[in-house]
Amino acid sequence: RPRRGMQTVTLIPGDGIGPEISTAVMKIFEAAKAPIQWEEKNVTAIKGPGGKWIIPPEAKESMDKNKIGLKGPLKTPIAAGHPSMNLLLRKTFDLYANVRPCMSIEGYKTPYTDVDLVTIRENTEGEYSGIEHTIVDGVVQSIKLITEDASRKIAEYAFEYAKNNQRASVTAVHKANIMRMSDGLFLRKCRQVAENYRDIKFTEMYLDTVCLNMVQDPTQFDVLVMPNLYGDILSDLCAGLIGGLGVTPSGNIGANNVAIFESVHGTAPDIAGLDLANPTALLLSAVMMLRHMGMHDYSKKIETACFNTIRDKKVLTGDLGGKSKCSEFTAEICQRVRDMD
Amino acid sequence: RPRRGMQTVTLIPGDGIGPEISTAVMKIFEAAKAPIQWEEKNVTAIKGPGGKWIIPPEAKESMDKNKIGLKGPLKTPIAAGHPSMNLLLRKTFDLYANVRPCMSIEGYKTPYTDVDLVTIRENTEGEYSGIEHTIVDGVVQSIKLITEDASRKIAEYAFEYAKNNQRASVTAVHKANIMRMSDGLFLRKCRQVAENYRDIKFTEMYLDTVCLNMVQDPTQFDVLVMPNLYGDILSDLCAGLIGGLGVTPSGNIGANNVAIFESVHGTAPDIAGLDLANPTALLLSAVMMLRHMGMHDYSKKIETACFNTIRDKKVLTGDLGGKSKCSEFTAEICQRVRDMD
Ligand SMILES: CC(C)[C@H](C(=O)O)[C@@H](O)C(=O)O
Ligand SMILES: CC(C)[C@H](C(=O)O)[C@@H](O)C(=O)O
Repeated sequence: RPRRGMQTVTLIPGDGIGPEISTAVMKIFEAAKAPIQWEEKNVTAIKGPGGKWIIPPEAKESMDKNKIGLKGPLKTPIAAGHPSMNLLLRKTFDLYANVRPCMSIEGYKTPYTDVDLVTIRENTEGEYSGIEHTIVDGVVQSIKLITEDASRKIAEYAFEYAKNNQRASVTAVHKANIMRMSDGLFLRKCRQVAENYRDIKFTEMYLDTVCLNMVQDPTQFDVLVMPNLYGDILSDLCAGLIGGLGVTPSGNIGANNVAIFESVHGTAPDIAGLDLANPTALLLSAVMMLRHMGMHDYSKKIETACFNTIRDKKVLTGDLGGKSKCSEFTAEICQRVRDMD
Repeated sequence: RPRRGMQTVTLIPGDGIGPEISTAVMKIFEAAKAPIQWEEKNVTAIKGPGGKWIIPPEAKESMDKNKIGLKGPLKTPIAAGHPSMNLLLRKTFDLYANVRPCMSIEGYKTPYTDVDLVTIRENTEGEYSGIEHTIVDGVVQSIKLITEDASRKIAEYAFEYAKNNQRASVTAVHKANIMRMSDGLFLRKCRQVAENYRDIKFTEMYLDTVCLNMVQDPTQFDVLVMPNLYGDILSDLCAGLIGGLGVTPSGNIGANNVAIFESVHGTAPDIAGLDLANPTALLLSAVMMLRHMGMHDYSKKIETACFNTIRDKKVLTGDLGGKSKCSEFTAEICQRVRDMD
């Protein structure tokens, strides 16, 4: 039962370190008095009526009702034919846009400074169509599917995102010199949508050129929009520039504001339960979530507390170069959040 | 007519800065007394009998005879249906392996040091099959074609390369978690071939993970082998780590030692003819060529002269941070080559 003035969010703690970092996020939200009530659901794919893998009905119902989810890492299933849970979630709720902001974090040194870009990845089709055939023995084809609809939708999402977040430019990333029809269609839709956003600069760039330029000077990039696989690649590359998946947030967005925010790192089974995990990626994903819900004050407060904790280098988890436990790092952020009141 | 003791190589100077940097390479080879005789051929695709784009017959004959080519940058044709010249050359001579060594260059500062890796890219199929269809209006598919034969050949090439170049490990780069059948087949072949090279460590890694780890610490990588598109992306990314396409060599290798070595940067029309171009990428490609031809003393001599010139920072072209002309940079390398005698 939702408490007055509270919004309910589906929480999928996940496997491995998932529960610990979820607890950390809940504590920090509590310290910030963020008006969020959590509805915890575990997610393990089950076989549905037709023998197809599905999300358990209670988790699905919770998401259908709340529309917003926060999710920790999920084990990659090893059963044959079992889909990746991340992909199944994106598909089940038609979360067509994968959004990953990459910002240099003060105090966390990498070879790059002043990175401030966002990758926006088409999340439903492309190389991830799952359609593959054996033509004859030893000859296999995988189909990359690009549609006008999905391309227009993701282009529109990218430009709306740029507009709403005061971003100056959108770059479409493609290989239309090679995949002339499929990437060509994607690119055409981007160009058409760009026409409606005259204040935002639109550029086009080959994926290989983006990779080359990215490692030479990432500060030249702003919002990048691209088909599914290219987004998979570029978002990880960009995460690497600012310190890795331990500090990079991510959001999967669908129609009607439905969205799941998630940390994209693994379950780290080796340190699970040892109070050693770094909750930053999940916390920053939760910060994205608050922003998505229009709760800008809370998101700002929590984000600032997190960044200041990292900047001051006194209480850091091991992967961030410190010696503190997850609970200590969390307590430090909570304290800073409270001090802001 | 080949002179005694000389080997003839087909030289495709290319467009834009191509002729200048080709002249630079020829001068340096002369200074080194490398026993190479050049057979210059221009290459502009023409329409063959069936209306298909082909390499001009004289260029084709020259390559068929000499087996080895060196090639500058070629303009990307803009005629509809015109293939990329680079792709047409790779296809015409069935150059199935694209090899790009990436080594940090002393004196040319980037955020990374001690990079020393080689990307080996399948060069004939995959996402570059060129097979695309419109299914219905607004729905396009591109076909990624993976065959057992090509996968085995490139895997064998990679392991042979590792063996002959005293490399410790080969990493297969894939997305078999998504393209289970196609990348799965590629991976299976790599595993099978690996069995025959017990002294070389074999690992497998997702492309996204490679990108992430690559920008965090490229020194962990050695030889990387992968399908066509992944190689396109990763080779550019790696070039970026050590200073860009202006300093990165490349070779396309086929059966029976047929090979074309090429600089993979563009034609730089803005500086063409101004004696400002940097010939390093073409020169280092020519060094790879000498090594491929078994002329290790000449390759070593020229490579050393080139690297020492860059290291000493006295005579450098503009893109390398200097003020010298292409001809001055070339003369400096020639001098150093002669001084080694
Ligand atoms: C887990 C995996 C299926 C997924 C992907 O390939 O999209 C991951 O790499 C990601 O980027 O979210
Ligand atoms: C020119 C282009 C067709 C080519 C490719 O995509 O393979 C280039 O990027 C390369 O890497 O040689």
